[in-house]
Amino acid sequence: MSLQAVLDRIDAELPQSLDRLFHLLRIESISTDPAYATPCVEAADWLVNQLRTIGLDASRRDTPGHPMVVAHGGDKGPHLLFYGHYDVQPVDPLELWTAPPFEPAIRETPNGKTIVARGSSDDKGQLMTFVEALRAWKTVEGDFPARITILFEGEEESGSPSLVPFLKENADELRADLALVCDTGMWDQNTPAISTMLRGLASEEVTIHAADRDLHSGMYGGPAINPIRVLTRILAGLHDDTGRITLPGFYDGVHDLPPEIKAQWDGLNFDASEFLGAVGLSTPAGEQGYSALEQIWSRPTCEVNGIWGGYTGKGFKTVLPAEAHAKVSFRLVGDQDPNAILESFRNYIESSLPPDCTASFARKEPSGATMLPVDAPEFTKARDALTEEWPNPAVFAGCGGSIPIVGHFREILGMDSLLIGFGQDDDAIHSPNEKYDLRSFHKGTRSWARVLSALSDQN
Amino acid sequence: MSLQAVLDRIDAELPQSLDRLFHLLRIESISTDPAYATPCVEAADWLVNQLRTIGLDASRRDTPGHPMVVAHGGDKGPHLLFYGHYDVQPVDPLELWTAPPFEPAIRETPNGKTIVARGSSDDKGQLMTFVEALRAWKTVEGDFPARITILFEGEEESGSPSLVPFLKENADELRADLALVCDTGMWDQNTPAISTMLRGLASEEVTIHAADRDLHSGMYGGPAINPIRVLTRILAGLHDDTGRITLPGFYDGVHDLPPEIKAQWDGLNFDASEFLGAVGLSTPAGEQGYSALEQIWSRPTCEVNGIWGGYTGKGFKTVLPAEAHAKVSFRLVGDQDPNAILESFRNYIESSLPPDCTASFARKEPSGATMLPVDAPEFTKARDALTEEWPNPAVFAGCGGSIPIVGHFREILGMDSLLIGFGQDDDAIHSPNEKYDLRSFHKGTRSWARVLSALSDQN
Repeated sequence: MSLQAVLDRIDAELPQSLDRLFHLLRIESISTDPAYATPCVEAADWLVNQLRTIGLDASRRDTPGHPMVVAHGGDKGPHLLFYGHYDVQPVDPLELWTAPPFEPAIRETPNGKTIVARGSSDDKGQLMTFVEALRAWKTVEGDFPARITILFEGEEESGSPSLVPFLKENADELRADLALVCDTGMWDQNTPAISTMLRGLASEEVTIHAADRDLHSGMYGGPAINPIRVLTRILAGLHDDTGRITLPGFYDGVHDLPPEIKAQWDGLNFDASEFLGAVGLSTPAGEQGYSALEQIWSRPTCEVNGIWGGYTGKGFKTVLPAEAHAKVSFRLVGDQDPNAILESFRNYIESSLPPDCTASFARKEPSGATMLPVDAPEFTKARDALTEEWPNPAVFAGCGGSIPIVGHFREILGMDSLLIGFGQDDDAIHSPNEKYDLRSFHKGTRSWARVLSALSDQN
Repeated sequence: MSLQAVLDRIDAELPQSLDRLFHLLRIESISTDPAYATPCVEAADWLVNQLRTIGLDASRRDTPGHPMVVAHGGDKGPHLLFYGHYDVQPVDPLELWTAPPFEPAIRETPNGKTIVARGSSDDKGQLMTFVEALRAWKTVEGDFPARITILFEGEEESGSPSLVPFLKENADELRADLALVCDTGMWDQNTPAISTMLRGLASEEVTIHAADRDLHSGMYGGPAINPIRVLTRILAGLHDDTGRITLPGFYDGVHDLPPEIKAQWDGLNFDASEFLGAVGLSTPAGEQGYSALEQIWSRPTCEVNGIWGGYTGKGFKTVLPAEAHAKVSFRLVGDQDPNAILESFRNYIESSLPPDCTASFARKEPSGATMLPVDAPEFTKARDALTEEWPNPAVFAGCGGSIPIVGHFREILGMDSLLIGFGQDDDAIHSPNEKYDLRSFHKGTRSWARVLSALSDQN
């Protein structure tokens, strides 16, 4: 039986698979910082070459931002589009990394071996599970199990400005029966998950402008307005005492959780104390009246992801700054309208400004929340295939994060996405010392072989 | 008559005086940043040499921080201690400077020539007015007009950590009849001022700690507490809607302004619109019920001088940071107790923390407000001497800034301070493009010759 031979090949090839992943992890493809544009191109070119060695027709497709990688192969069975991203988050604060973020290494831990590097889990390690599964399949079978299209982007961590135009311009080439996306996590180390509810994301950077220059707080302190004070007052007004967000219309389109979904989630026995305890916290801080899991999977949030203004160096400087800044993001659920929420946010700020202050804004393309069709046969087949590989049966899960590509695939290409990933809660993505379990990489690759087999009815 | 000869000498020597000032301005003596320790020593050594060329017995006196400069000369008349500081503020944001901050240049403006450089007004240009007056006196008269001690420090812009121990250890050497301090401003371009009410200053840096690492806002957003949100709520609670500070006990020791002082200040015809309009503002933003001048000179403030946390680079990063920070300072008046206020601030923060958050603090030595004896004969003599030099009569003024040295001189050395300076409101001290009017430098030097003459009864 061919699947077993493919799985055996994956096992035998693991050292070489790791070498290839490490090569990719060494490339400093930070997409949000223009200083790293060249490494982003380097990562794209490296992936094009890898895909060609597997026998795919691969090319780098330049955009106004970082390039896409597109590849095609196979001519029978269902048409599957696999998506991943080769760009990574910035690495600051660098001093908290115990080893350089772009020098990947295997580390022994009480939970087994891990691969430590920026991007190991988000998303280079994950996308390489699919590439390595495909490589093993082609080596063993001499062909692909389905009609395969691959799309890698390099701007996922910086708002994907080129993605929607690229999907629209290349819709005929990219449209498939189903998208496969590997950018999510497992329920726990032994329980694979298919993510079927995703929160949306809307982000806005706001700058409060006051005086036309920085002022001395002795000479001007009192009569001169301080934009930091204005900003803190505005931001502090975004939540009420119960943790609800105060923007007018914010909860329009937020639905109560259906009882059967709530029952399924309660059955997962999510341990909020353990989840929070792992990062040094103890008390769910979100909206009152909702469990921690509901807060993550089914409730919207408003967070300040960054704030700065005035003197932030060593020592003290008695300055009244001319400007103060914040980066604010909203996680969205249900049918919340991202653009309406950003408008409400802007209106709230504009209406909260005292005399002599103005506000300016910069946003990235927002995305709404997504619900996927868990009753479709592909979802059942994939779930059963994952159950074959792992100790515990696979679950349909929510996801607190946002994967805007899922909405774009549905709206522009008319296809649903099967979100299968092998990240763990403790992977520290977006944080110092990001890691990916070696087991996630190895069994993740095996999982994709099984899922491809199931979707193409090869087993 | 000797004074006129001294004044003539100052006029003739102006080009050479400027050359010397420019040399000092080129030294990057930023005291708050440890990277600039060597230039601070360089500035001290240069001053020692300058004072020796005038005939003073000068030496560099090392401290655990940046060195002091001490010099003595003369053996008759009153004993006067002149104080200034050779250190300067940081120069960020550097991109707003129209020329490099440590390359001084004369610039033509509608108000006359100005000297543009970091430290030109605060305080290198000011301290050199006294040095140049002394130099001219010695050249013309062959002696000093009084018994002179000079003290220059290099940590004024970074909290003066070495100052109090140095004053205590060298009290017998430094104690004089009166201190002369040149670190303040004129009332306007034509009206010299002696500052007789100074606000105190207490500063605290606060860090709010939450999770033990930066978190992904998709994975943790909701149940995980965001320290930026905690910080903004705490800072927003420091003022009520009328601009009053809410800390318990904050207004203890704040007195109403005596009617005669209020009448004198009203007589100055301070133009709040012009004062604020010069920096792009229009509306006094301080405590309701007080004029802008009262807000600056006689009312306490609480300001956030810096705030930072999370991702502050380009683009967006959906992080929930582990920490958030602010630098907060209080300007104090009357008999407010700086230590009691910092304790109240810490208590307020500690009592405002939600579960899982802690706060840590770092402060610098605070100072209370100061009232000087305007009825003493030295104050009258100095005021009359200044009136001789300038178009308008000199005034006794308040000062929104803090000059902690005045309190230390009184407490440790038992002497009052005569605060005479030639800065202008538009000097942009602590800001980009700091300048000092050439007229302030020239007539400031002449003013010191006149004040020295008056205080020593030489005219």
